[in-house]
Amino acid sequence: MASASNQSVYRATTTAPVNIAVIKYWGKRDTTLNLPTNSSLSVTLSQRSLRTLTTASCSAEYPTADTLNLNGKPQDIQSSKRTLACISNLRALRKALEDADSSLPKLSAHPLRIVSENNFPTAAGLASSAAGFAALVRAVADLYQLPQSPKELSRIARQGSGSACRSLMGGYVAWRTGELADGSDSLAEEVAPASHWPEMRALVLVVSAEKKDVPSTEGMQTTVATSALFAERAQNVVPQRMTAIETAIQARNFHDFAEITMRDSNTFHATCLDSWPPIFYMNDVSRAAVRLVHDINNAVGRTVAAYTFDAGPNAVIYYEEKDSELVAGTVKAILGSSSEGWDGVFYERLASITAPGVSLEKIDPRAVEVLKDGVSRVILTGVGEGPVSVEDHLVSETGEILSTL
Amino acid sequence: MASASNQSVYRATTTAPVNIAVIKYWGKRDTTLNLPTNSSLSVTLSQRSLRTLTTASCSAEYPTADTLNLNGKPQDIQSSKRTLACISNLRALRKALEDADSSLPKLSAHPLRIVSENNFPTAAGLASSAAGFAALVRAVADLYQLPQSPKELSRIARQGSGSACRSLMGGYVAWRTGELADGSDSLAEEVAPASHWPEMRALVLVVSAEKKDVPSTEGMQTTVATSALFAERAQNVVPQRMTAIETAIQARNFHDFAEITMRDSNTFHATCLDSWPPIFYMNDVSRAAVRLVHDINNAVGRTVAAYTFDAGPNAVIYYEEKDSELVAGTVKAILGSSSEGWDGVFYERLASITAPGVSLEKIDPRAVEVLKDGVSRVILTGVGEGPVSVEDHLVSETGEILSTL
Repeated sequence: MASASNQSVYRATTTAPVNIAVIKYWGKRDTTLNLPTNSSLSVTLSQRSLRTLTTASCSAEYPTADTLNLNGKPQDIQSSKRTLACISNLRALRKALEDADSSLPKLSAHPLRIVSENNFPTAAGLASSAAGFAALVRAVADLYQLPQSPKELSRIARQGSGSACRSLMGGYVAWRTGELADGSDSLAEEVAPASHWPEMRALVLVVSAEKKDVPSTEGMQTTVATSALFAERAQNVVPQRMTAIETAIQARNFHDFAEITMRDSNTFHATCLDSWPPIFYMNDVSRAAVRLVHDINNAVGRTVAAYTFDAGPNAVIYYEEKDSELVAGTVKAILGSSSEGWDGVFYERLASITAPGVSLEKIDPRAVEVLKDGVSRVILTGVGEGPVSVEDHLVSETGEILSTL
Repeated sequence: MASASNQSVYRATTTAPVNIAVIKYWGKRDTTLNLPTNSSLSVTLSQRSLRTLTTASCSAEYPTADTLNLNGKPQDIQSSKRTLACISNLRALRKALEDADSSLPKLSAHPLRIVSENNFPTAAGLASSAAGFAALVRAVADLYQLPQSPKELSRIARQGSGSACRSLMGGYVAWRTGELADGSDSLAEEVAPASHWPEMRALVLVVSAEKKDVPSTEGMQTTVATSALFAERAQNVVPQRMTAIETAIQARNFHDFAEITMRDSNTFHATCLDSWPPIFYMNDVSRAAVRLVHDINNAVGRTVAAYTFDAGPNAVIYYEEKDSELVAGTVKAILGSSSEGWDGVFYERLASITAPGVSLEKIDPRAVEVLKDGVSRVILTGVGEGPVSVEDHLVSETGEILSTL
C-alpha cells in the first residue's frame, strides 16, 4: 500500500522472487514487446533464500526525472527502454484511475524514485533481472494502488524482462506465448500454487564462472535466426512438453516432471550449440552435474533428481524434500568443505546428515573430481510464494535513499 | 594382385586411409545392414600420415578357420558379425567367378588369414575402424581378383563399419543413404578426386582423452530413438547441406565448404546433447578449439579454417595450404612445445614458420590456456588417395604372420 508521509512522499515496498524455468524461454518473435516464440514454465523459488527488495516512491517535491537505484548505484534510467516501457505502462494505468476519480492524489504526475536491492550476488548467474523487473512492476503498481491482477501486470513485467512475468506469482507458473501481435495475450499465469506441491526443493550449484559466453538477449536471437533445429523445438517439441509437464505438476508426478525438465534443458542447449556461431553455456562442470544426477537416479532406481541449466554453467537440481538425503546429502558429501553456502532456512534437514545418501562408489569418479574443483557455492532453496508487500522501505519518509546492504 | 607362393599361399596387400566426415553419419535405419538415416560426406586423409596396412592371404594348407590379426593381436573373428558379413559377401563373389570359370583356383574354399596394422595409435580417437574395414575389404577383393568397382565394394565395407565405405575412395566422398530395404543402393561414391582440390589440409588436435562417453554404435541409436530434434536433421537439414557442400567442393569454395562443415558438426553434436540420456562428446578443450577457429576467421576477415568433431573430443581443422601460416602457424605458436607431433610429410611448409599467422592477442586467452593444457598431440595431414595395392606383405610366402610394428 502506498503511504503518504508528512512531506508527501508516497511509498510502497515489495519483495519479488527468482524463478527457474523447467520449460525454457528462448527466442522472441517480437523484440520490442518481448513476445516469445514458445510458452515456458517455471518454479518460483523461495524468497527466504533469494529475493529482490524494491521500494517505489513518488513525490511532487522530487526533481523532475524518474530515478532508479540498484544495489546502491544510480542507474541511467533513460537509456533503459525496457525500464521506461514498464514505468510508462504503469503510469498510464494510474492516470486512468485518477481521470475516473478526481479525489485521488495525482501520483501519475509525480517523479518516481525507485530503489532496489538483491540479497544475492549478481555474479552468481541467477536470474536477477526476472526478480528485479517483477519487483519494480509490483512496487510501482502497489504505489499507484492499481487494481490489476498479477496476470494482468505480467504483460507489463514481460516488457522489462521476458522471464520477469513469471516472478509475479508463486508456485508453478506458465507464461503463455499468446497469439496476438500486440502481446495482450502473452501473459503469465499460475499453474499451481506453492502449497499444491510444497515439497519441491532446488539445489543451485554455482559454478566458478568464466564470463558468460553470449548474453541471453543476444544469444536467443542468434538461435532464432540461425539454428536449423530451433523451429522444431519452438513449434512442436515445447507445446507437447508444456501439456505434459502441467499434467505432471497437477499429479505431483516427480518422475515425469523431472524427465521433461532435464530433456527440455538439453534441447534448449542443443539449439544453442546449433546456432551460428555456436553458443555454449554448459561447461565441463555442468556436464559433471548432469552425470551426477543420472548416476544418483540410476543408483536409487527411480528418478529422484532433475537438472536444469539456464544461459550459464550453473546447475539447478530439483528434488523432493523426502529425498533430501539421496540428493542433497550426496552432493554435500561430494562438495563438503570445497564449496560455500551450506546454510540457510532449507538447510535444517541436511545439517544432521553426515553420510551421502548414495554411495559415492556409484558416482562417476571424474564427475566427482570436476564438481569438487568447479563448484564454488551452493544455494539450497525450494518452491515459494510470489511478491510480498513489506514495510522495510528503501526510501525514508522524507525521500532519502536507505540501504540494507 | 594375388600371388601364389611355392607352398600355395595366395596374398594381396593394401593400404587404406582414414576419412573425416564434414557431413556426419549418425543414425542407422537398419542396424544389421548398417543403412544410415542420412547421407554423409567426407574427406579422405592422406596415407602418408595415417593408414591401415592389411594383407589378406589364403591357402588350402591353412587350418580350417578364417583368422584375423589386428595390430599384433589375434581377434575372435567368430564373435564379430560385421567381419563375418564382409568375408562371406566377398567369398560369395569369388565363388561366382570360380563357378563361371573352372580354370580359376578355388580360393573361396580356402581359409583366410588376414593381418592388419595401423600406423597410428587406436587411442588417438581417430576413425580406425573405417580404415580397418576398408583395408580388409580391399585386400580380400584383391586376393580374390574381384572385378567389382570401389563403389560396388562399398556396399560390403559398409556392413563392416558404416563410415568404412567412404574409405574405399580418395578425395571427396559421398555416402548416399539410398532408399532400398536391402541396402543395395546405399553406396559410397567419389564426388571429386583428391587432385580436384589437393590444397585441402587437415590439422588434427588430439585431446588428452577421457574414456569415450558412449560408443558411437550405441550412441547413434540412442539419438535416433530419443532425440526430439534428430528427425529434423536427418530429413531436412542434411539433404540441403549435402547439395550445398557438393556445390562448394566442385567450385573449390572454401568459405562455403567451411561454414557447412562447422554447422553440421554443431548440429550433429546438438542431436547428441538432445538424446536421452544426453551424450557429450565435446569437452572444454573442444569448445576452446571452436573458439580458436572463430577467432582466427574473425581476425583474418575471411573464413580460412573449419572445425569438425566426430564422436570424441578431438578437433579436426580443415584449411587450404595457402593459409598454412594463418591457421597451422597460429596453432603451432599456441601449442608449440606443449604437444607432440609437429612433424611428418605435411610439416615441411610449417617447419620454417616461427611466428603465429594471427596475433595471439586476437585469440581468446582462456581458449589459448585450455588448448595448451588439453591438446597432447598434433597430426598435420591433407586430402589423399584411396587404397593402394602394395608389396610389403604382413604374411610371408609360407604363411607366417609378419609385422612392421
